[in-house]
Amino acid sequence: MTDTPHPHYDRHAETLNRALTAITERGYWSAYPESPSPRVYGETAAADGKAAFEAYLGGNFPLDQPTDGKWIATETSPFGVELNVTYPHATADQLVAAASAALPAWRDAGPQTRAGVCLEILARLHKHVFELANAVQFTSGQAFVMAFQAGGAHALDRALEAIAYSYAEMTRHPGTAGWEKAAGKGDPLRMTKTFHVVPRGVGLVIGCNTFPTWNSYPGLFASLVTGNPVVVKPHPRAVLPLAITVRYAREVLAEAGFDPNLVLLAPEAADEKLATTLALHPAVKIVDFTGSTEYGDWLEANARQAAVYTEKAGLNTVVIDSTDDFVGMCRNLGFTLVLYSGQMCTTSQNILIPRDGIDTDQGHKSFDEVAAGIAAAVGKLTADPARGVELTGAIVNDGVLERLDEVTKVGEPVLESRTVEHPAYPGAVVRTPAIVKLDAGDTATYSREWFGPISFAIATDSTAHSLEILRSTVGEKGALTAAVYSTDESVLAATENAAIEVGVHLSANLTGGVFVNQSAAFSDFHGSGANAAANAALTDGAYVANRFRIVQSRRHSS
Amino acid sequence: MTDTPHPHYDRHAETLNRALTAITERGYWSAYPESPSPRVYGETAAADGKAAFEAYLGGNFPLDQPTDGKWIATETSPFGVELNVTYPHATADQLVAAASAALPAWRDAGPQTRAGVCLEILARLHKHVFELANAVQFTSGQAFVMAFQAGGAHALDRALEAIAYSYAEMTRHPGTAGWEKAAGKGDPLRMTKTFHVVPRGVGLVIGCNTFPTWNSYPGLFASLVTGNPVVVKPHPRAVLPLAITVRYAREVLAEAGFDPNLVLLAPEAADEKLATTLALHPAVKIVDFTGSTEYGDWLEANARQAAVYTEKAGLNTVVIDSTDDFVGMCRNLGFTLVLYSGQMCTTSQNILIPRDGIDTDQGHKSFDEVAAGIAAAVGKLTADPARGVELTGAIVNDGVLERLDEVTKVGEPVLESRTVEHPAYPGAVVRTPAIVKLDAGDTATYSREWFGPISFAIATDSTAHSLEILRSTVGEKGALTAAVYSTDESVLAATENAAIEVGVHLSANLTGGVFVNQSAAFSDFHGSGANAAANAALTDGAYVANRFRIVQSRRHSS
Repeated sequence: MTDTPHPHYDRHAETLNRALTAITERGYWSAYPESPSPRVYGETAAADGKAAFEAYLGGNFPLDQPTDGKWIATETSPFGVELNVTYPHATADQLVAAASAALPAWRDAGPQTRAGVCLEILARLHKHVFELANAVQFTSGQAFVMAFQAGGAHALDRALEAIAYSYAEMTRHPGTAGWEKAAGKGDPLRMTKTFHVVPRGVGLVIGCNTFPTWNSYPGLFASLVTGNPVVVKPHPRAVLPLAITVRYAREVLAEAGFDPNLVLLAPEAADEKLATTLALHPAVKIVDFTGSTEYGDWLEANARQAAVYTEKAGLNTVVIDSTDDFVGMCRNLGFTLVLYSGQMCTTSQNILIPRDGIDTDQGHKSFDEVAAGIAAAVGKLTADPARGVELTGAIVNDGVLERLDEVTKVGEPVLESRTVEHPAYPGAVVRTPAIVKLDAGDTATYSREWFGPISFAIATDSTAHSLEILRSTVGEKGALTAAVYSTDESVLAATENAAIEVGVHLSANLTGGVFVNQSAAFSDFHGSGANAAANAALTDGAYVANRFRIVQSRRHSS
Repeated sequence: MTDTPHPHYDRHAETLNRALTAITERGYWSAYPESPSPRVYGETAAADGKAAFEAYLGGNFPLDQPTDGKWIATETSPFGVELNVTYPHATADQLVAAASAALPAWRDAGPQTRAGVCLEILARLHKHVFELANAVQFTSGQAFVMAFQAGGAHALDRALEAIAYSYAEMTRHPGTAGWEKAAGKGDPLRMTKTFHVVPRGVGLVIGCNTFPTWNSYPGLFASLVTGNPVVVKPHPRAVLPLAITVRYAREVLAEAGFDPNLVLLAPEAADEKLATTLALHPAVKIVDFTGSTEYGDWLEANARQAAVYTEKAGLNTVVIDSTDDFVGMCRNLGFTLVLYSGQMCTTSQNILIPRDGIDTDQGHKSFDEVAAGIAAAVGKLTADPARGVELTGAIVNDGVLERLDEVTKVGEPVLESRTVEHPAYPGAVVRTPAIVKLDAGDTATYSREWFGPISFAIATDSTAHSLEILRSTVGEKGALTAAVYSTDESVLAATENAAIEVGVHLSANLTGGVFVNQSAAFSDFHGSGANAAANAALTDGAYVANRFRIVQSRRHSS
């Protein structure tokens, strides 16, 4: 055990301490500015980042790690841009062996050094945030500003948040303690006890297509800072953002005197099932996964040697009872549906509206008027293609297009999806959101997830009926978000009670610049771990506490 | 949500705060005096407790909870005392329905009220600690003083420790937080966020025969204080200690205005498999289990709807390299082997000694001399039946006797087990420990657990070889404890390193009044969760953090 932490610890102690305060307050805080403005990041940052991104295209990605000699390219950009980046491939055994060999020195370095080095990795990534943002944009289909924010600044905030929780957990007990117990008339019994923070083993992070960094960073950094080497298995269609992440992480680790194989990229060839091989490897003791319910459930059931943290699909729901700001409500919901073409795990799908309509500041509105109001807001945001695409981004994969076709057959359209020509990227696949009218009885349709720019205006008998549907659908299938609009405190309270029972985070009466599909690091919890949509929250104590164990030794004090 | 905590919170706030300090310091602290002396507990306490215990015998246990009308009796005392206590039986569905109905009000009462009420339950149990100790003694076979300490005072300390960790985890975030984010030139965005502590569901505690209270209290109180109703399924041979626990818990809950069905007893008829039915019930979301590896592994694999915490079997190991206190070492190990006839999950089984002997303060000792030294210490402690039985207690069940027979066939005896007549309880089954000599090559024999007063003196090629065996056996089968004796700091360091790698708690050079098989609440961790003997520690952050979830709601601030 080294007693003096690496200088990176002192360098970043202030940031760490501020983050430690933030996680106890859960108010507003952010360490990484979310505005890509040149006033914040400098005049050349954007161009430099874009150039760095473009330098990767069509070439071998610079990553000096164990390999079986194969180079693979699996990405297709939703913007129609040719990527053709090739990545060095390795077998599961090569990756796990290299990671395992790196473990002991990292474990013995202790919490402070590990936290310092991890924070230096975040600082390095932040220095390259535009490069990262471009990589996120062109693999996920997010528009640039969103890729910069969610894929860059906010992802770094979530990483820091995970590091802070982990550091708090590792240091809640002292490294050593004296123990003295009176023993009758004799000398007291005196023991010295040492409490070692011991990592579980190799961590595996399985990334997703839509949020390659944001959804991967909490698990990656929570595992790493608690002493576990991490193998990062990106989605085959979104490798570059995580390859860049691994590259700079390895650079910092090596500079700090550690084995860079503490962080490894595991690019997966088509039909290779590398994720599955890795997830079942006996040395892999932690798995973090974002993706389909089917595969998440499979991991939970089969990767039994590991602690498995999953974020899966769900039925995000809005209950509309009444509003004192009809325009604000429609605008707010419209923005949620448009943002990244509804391809967020937090986007609302099921909008429950009483079939007799609702009371608003504009008088009574019929069911159709409410649905039309939301549709109009969507229409306004997407009317101008040039402005619209900066919100919608592009469609991430063909599955979304298939569902957009399929949904035209399940109910009457409130708003039809249009194909939009991207002014800057002619090859981009851009679609505006579809809203379909359903009846509460159409359970089979709305009780499955329609991932993408698809939502349902569902006619219910009453708000009480809407709450029943919230309870039954979210209770069974889970959800990451719920929203309610009501001017009646008793309705708000009843909805909150239902949300507590089915374990879903609730936003009430959002009419301004906060949206149900967005969660702020250090304040909002993302996922509750209390319903089928996720077995954990990113990030809280439970998310980090079991990534390491305490092993003690004791001896008589001299 | 109630804002003012129940008066029990203020009543016990000082104890709770002291416990919260203790878990951050991990030094010596105890809230419940471990001496059963009349000077501590009063002149009549012992007799009153015994009388209260005896009043239960041969009668219907007073427990007013849902029942199917059957009364069952399943206990047989290792002391040969007639118990014949009958308990009201209930079906799994009855128990889970009653528990579920009790949940909402308990959840809504909040962390402070729940902590206060749980501490009042501990105070009530402490008031009845002699009654509890008698129940533990006559069901587990522990001698009285041990039953009083491990089954009474220390069990209460472990319960308080679990409550403290849980309370810290529930209150690390505020109940509500303000969030204010600058928004360009306009007004800042302002939100109020509420963070609800939401229990997982119904908790199930599956008790064991040997430590019905000590091993059950951490899970019981960690689940209860975090808002989960708890169904307590005692071992069929050790029902009474948990029936008494449930009785007083229900009494306190009802007095405090809560549904007593927050804590329910689930006595199990022969071959009923009630534990299995309960563990697979969809509403059961937490399972705490102490017992066999086979059933623990089954629970982990099958009770998939629940968070499962298990303590199972292992191969507790001692590495003897050298000592500067041969007498102290032998006396210390001898006591460990004798205490409760080795029927502790922490008792050493495999004692690894170089076949060429060791250096000691009494000169070189051969392998046989070391083994004989330990055997002599055991012999001395058990020579006088009247004094011996106060350490050994009685044999808990026939399985132990069968293994004592079987072990005579696997190797040369260093010490043969004797049958002892208990001076006070003629029906008691009392046996002294057996020590058998094995060679390092006899892996098949010593790499399984021989639960009971059975240990092996195993001849190895060297201390390095002993450490190899420690790594391989504990690495594969797990262990709750390891010990090392050496005068060489490099050997101590190498053993500590091996212990860290296989995740077992290590005691070095114990020669006085601290024993490897004993762990002190608030200081020693019990179980590491880092090897096959247990998937969790009793108690730490990871043990409690996932027993509840945080569900948030947010709205614009006015």
